[in-house]
Amino acid sequence: MFEIAELGHTLKKSEYNEQIPELRTQLLLLQQQLGTCDFPVIILISGVDGGGKGQVINLLNEWLDARYMETFAFDEPSDEEKERPKYWRYWRSLPPKGRIGIYVGSWYSDPISHRVYGDIDDSQLSVELKHINEMEQLLINDGALIIKCWLHLKKETQKKRLKELEKDPETSWQVTERDKKHLKLYDEFVEIAENVLTTTSTGISPWLVVEGADIRYSSLTVGQHVLHRIRQHIESRNGKSENINGLPFVNINQQSLLDTLDLSLELDKKDYNDQLLHYQGKLNKLVRMAREQKRSTILVFEGWDAAGKGGAIRRTTSAIDARSYRVIQTAAPTDEEAAHHYLWRFWRHIPRAGKVTIYDRSWYGRVLVERVEGFAQEKEWMRSYSEIVNFEEALIEHGILLLKFWLHIDKDEQLERFKAREQISYKKHKITEDDYRNREKWDDYKIAVNEMIARTSTRAVPWLMIEANDKRYARIKILKTVCEKLEAMLEPEK
Amino acid sequence: MFEIAELGHTLKKSEYNEQIPELRTQLLLLQQQLGTCDFPVIILISGVDGGGKGQVINLLNEWLDARYMETFAFDEPSDEEKERPKYWRYWRSLPPKGRIGIYVGSWYSDPISHRVYGDIDDSQLSVELKHINEMEQLLINDGALIIKCWLHLKKETQKKRLKELEKDPETSWQVTERDKKHLKLYDEFVEIAENVLTTTSTGISPWLVVEGADIRYSSLTVGQHVLHRIRQHIESRNGKSENINGLPFVNINQQSLLDTLDLSLELDKKDYNDQLLHYQGKLNKLVRMAREQKRSTILVFEGWDAAGKGGAIRRTTSAIDARSYRVIQTAAPTDEEAAHHYLWRFWRHIPRAGKVTIYDRSWYGRVLVERVEGFAQEKEWMRSYSEIVNFEEALIEHGILLLKFWLHIDKDEQLERFKAREQISYKKHKITEDDYRNREKWDDYKIAVNEMIARTSTRAVPWLMIEANDKRYARIKILKTVCEKLEAMLEPEK
Repeated sequence: MFEIAELGHTLKKSEYNEQIPELRTQLLLLQQQLGTCDFPVIILISGVDGGGKGQVINLLNEWLDARYMETFAFDEPSDEEKERPKYWRYWRSLPPKGRIGIYVGSWYSDPISHRVYGDIDDSQLSVELKHINEMEQLLINDGALIIKCWLHLKKETQKKRLKELEKDPETSWQVTERDKKHLKLYDEFVEIAENVLTTTSTGISPWLVVEGADIRYSSLTVGQHVLHRIRQHIESRNGKSENINGLPFVNINQQSLLDTLDLSLELDKKDYNDQLLHYQGKLNKLVRMAREQKRSTILVFEGWDAAGKGGAIRRTTSAIDARSYRVIQTAAPTDEEAAHHYLWRFWRHIPRAGKVTIYDRSWYGRVLVERVEGFAQEKEWMRSYSEIVNFEEALIEHGILLLKFWLHIDKDEQLERFKAREQISYKKHKITEDDYRNREKWDDYKIAVNEMIARTSTRAVPWLMIEANDKRYARIKILKTVCEKLEAMLEPEK
Repeated sequence: MFEIAELGHTLKKSEYNEQIPELRTQLLLLQQQLGTCDFPVIILISGVDGGGKGQVINLLNEWLDARYMETFAFDEPSDEEKERPKYWRYWRSLPPKGRIGIYVGSWYSDPISHRVYGDIDDSQLSVELKHINEMEQLLINDGALIIKCWLHLKKETQKKRLKELEKDPETSWQVTERDKKHLKLYDEFVEIAENVLTTTSTGISPWLVVEGADIRYSSLTVGQHVLHRIRQHIESRNGKSENINGLPFVNINQQSLLDTLDLSLELDKKDYNDQLLHYQGKLNKLVRMAREQKRSTILVFEGWDAAGKGGAIRRTTSAIDARSYRVIQTAAPTDEEAAHHYLWRFWRHIPRAGKVTIYDRSWYGRVLVERVEGFAQEKEWMRSYSEIVNFEEALIEHGILLLKFWLHIDKDEQLERFKAREQISYKKHKITEDDYRNREKWDDYKIAVNEMIARTSTRAVPWLMIEANDKRYARIKILKTVCEKLEAMLEPEK
């Protein structure tokens, strides 16, 4: 889920200076309005060391009217605090209705660091997260708005950042032995943080993950997010529309994960045919092994219209014994399916031991087409990110191999394919008015895809991005990935 | 929390026969209406062995129209089921919108029995409960109504029930070796069940605990509860009033825990004076020891108006060094308190290490006066039971001794005391119009008190019931209890 915060987002000084006055004015006006509202705002600023938490908080303090807010930095508990239950320090600091409380180091800090240091195990962490969810639920039920921001840095950037701070005698004091120790534990820290963030990113209180490498970018992003969330909360409590066109997940100078893909990648025919033969043979064998070892596989294909999902699926299934797999075409739900929870129709096709289920489009429709077309309300699709993560976790825990592919093409390539299809009699039916209509919403879909990846790409089940402007390249990359992942999971043959 | 289901509730055959036709008619009419609604109903019937789960389900099947419902008994998973993630079996059986699914042995069975048999530890159980809450939350978010009934039996009754079944050749097959083993584990089972029920009794899907000793009583209670919940859900989804005057927690032939108290208990003056001296001396010493050992104490006093809370508190505090305790009078909240979550004003007075805080009325106001007077909406006070249980758990986990007393008097005694107070110049101010108004709502308060005890009396923090028609008896019982509990908690003096 942190990929999106590792793209090197920056903001030019001129752009920043241009936007800040407006943001500050808006924040102050909103804060005045908030003063008359019957709910408190709780802002949590968390993240990796060196992610700029302190800087962001200083700026928020500068931008907001200090008379109606308070900042709390929780470090080691005081004597007073130690003598009470651990949440006492948070309770005593909660802002009253109409006010803002900013927390750096909150109820998240201890569980994460205790887990990183091995003081607690996974199930104890899980208990802590349950307490956190209960606490947040209780506050939210009472009307509170909780805004949670996570400042992320790539490993190399964190290293560099700490070195810079250390070199400068003015700032070297900021770098503690603890920070250096943390750097060594980066990978563990980030893995645990991902677990914590997905578990606690509920529909009602989602995390915003922000790249922390550039303070102008991160502070403006956090500032705009705070503005948007408070405004949205006031409107929703006033009974105004709850659909305010989504959270501004990354809305400034948006660099999209999709844009980082190299769509010029291609494969010539000869190479393609050789590799196709090779990987199909390999896949056939691996699927037979999986069957013997009773390990199930689920492949999920998502992507733009005409990105080549069908073709890629056929190249995959043609390598497998027909008794071993099923392809589930996800179209409009049947009556029976519509009468159940949206996940029900995917649960029912979970493969038996040793079999393969391929979903041609999937549960992600909830946060793509249903979101963009307005078939699901914002509160519905917002909560489905964590529902989906929980669902996939249940599959993984059962030992199922779950791979999800996003087939990416650009807008021009799509148009060409649409036109080409219209020329071929047996492909003509695949192009309808709908396809052109969807195409007009390309940018909305792009925002939805980016947010989907950010919120559901976990270490256990990462999104596998396929550059698909060249069909041959895409098909081989998919086949190869499936083979590699299967091979890694299965016991080697004796 | 099971005390209320150990009172020996029964229902006469004649009463039962009188009520059943009406209930059945109502259920069938409601089921017809449900058919046009866009949500499913999921009824879970769980409980102790011999609690009559099977009988209750058979009756529900008899009463409801079988075409629009289905019953699922989950025992050992099938091969098909074992090959999928563990929730697959529940997903596949979920009823569609407009239908009813009845589950005996649900997602609760395995976690409870695995914990009883020691296959999992407390934190693993906690993880399972997190999954359960996620599952139920997901269904409820989608509109589903979940009705959870727990059939409870006293240990002796369970024993007797199994013996009876075993003796009769017609029913002896029903008693398995597993049942006999379970009987030996009764205490553990009930302790774990209490933990599970309180953790999963959220405001949106509370458990109904029903005494299972008499099938007429239990089936009618469950039937009426089902009727009431479905009706309420339809109305609330149609946007009609959400306040439908509470759940019928135990609404048939209601035997109240309060009524089981022997209010004739009394103490003569001589005895009283002797014991007062004895226990006050003891308490003084114990509080000093607690202070040295840095163990904190919280005493909560609740009870009817004029039940003698103030007098009991004074007899307690007069034994303690004034620097060691604080009495918190809970009246209308201050402005500052009203601007926070209702628990905030109690959190702030949690004692430092070694000190005593006495709450003269407490957070239970939420489910007593605020409920009865309508200051809190039903959804607010319903969810506060679990909020309160979580809150008290956090105190206990920190090592605080928490005792909560309910001072019980009868209605006549109250009137006498009111009148007596009006005669005494320095007590006159204590009686106002409000007191007489509250008195008129005695029966509503009684329902609220019963439900409060049922939902918040846990093994860790049970309600301590004080027979208070005789002030002397009540005061001594309280002092004695505080001494005993303190003594049990503290390290003995060397």
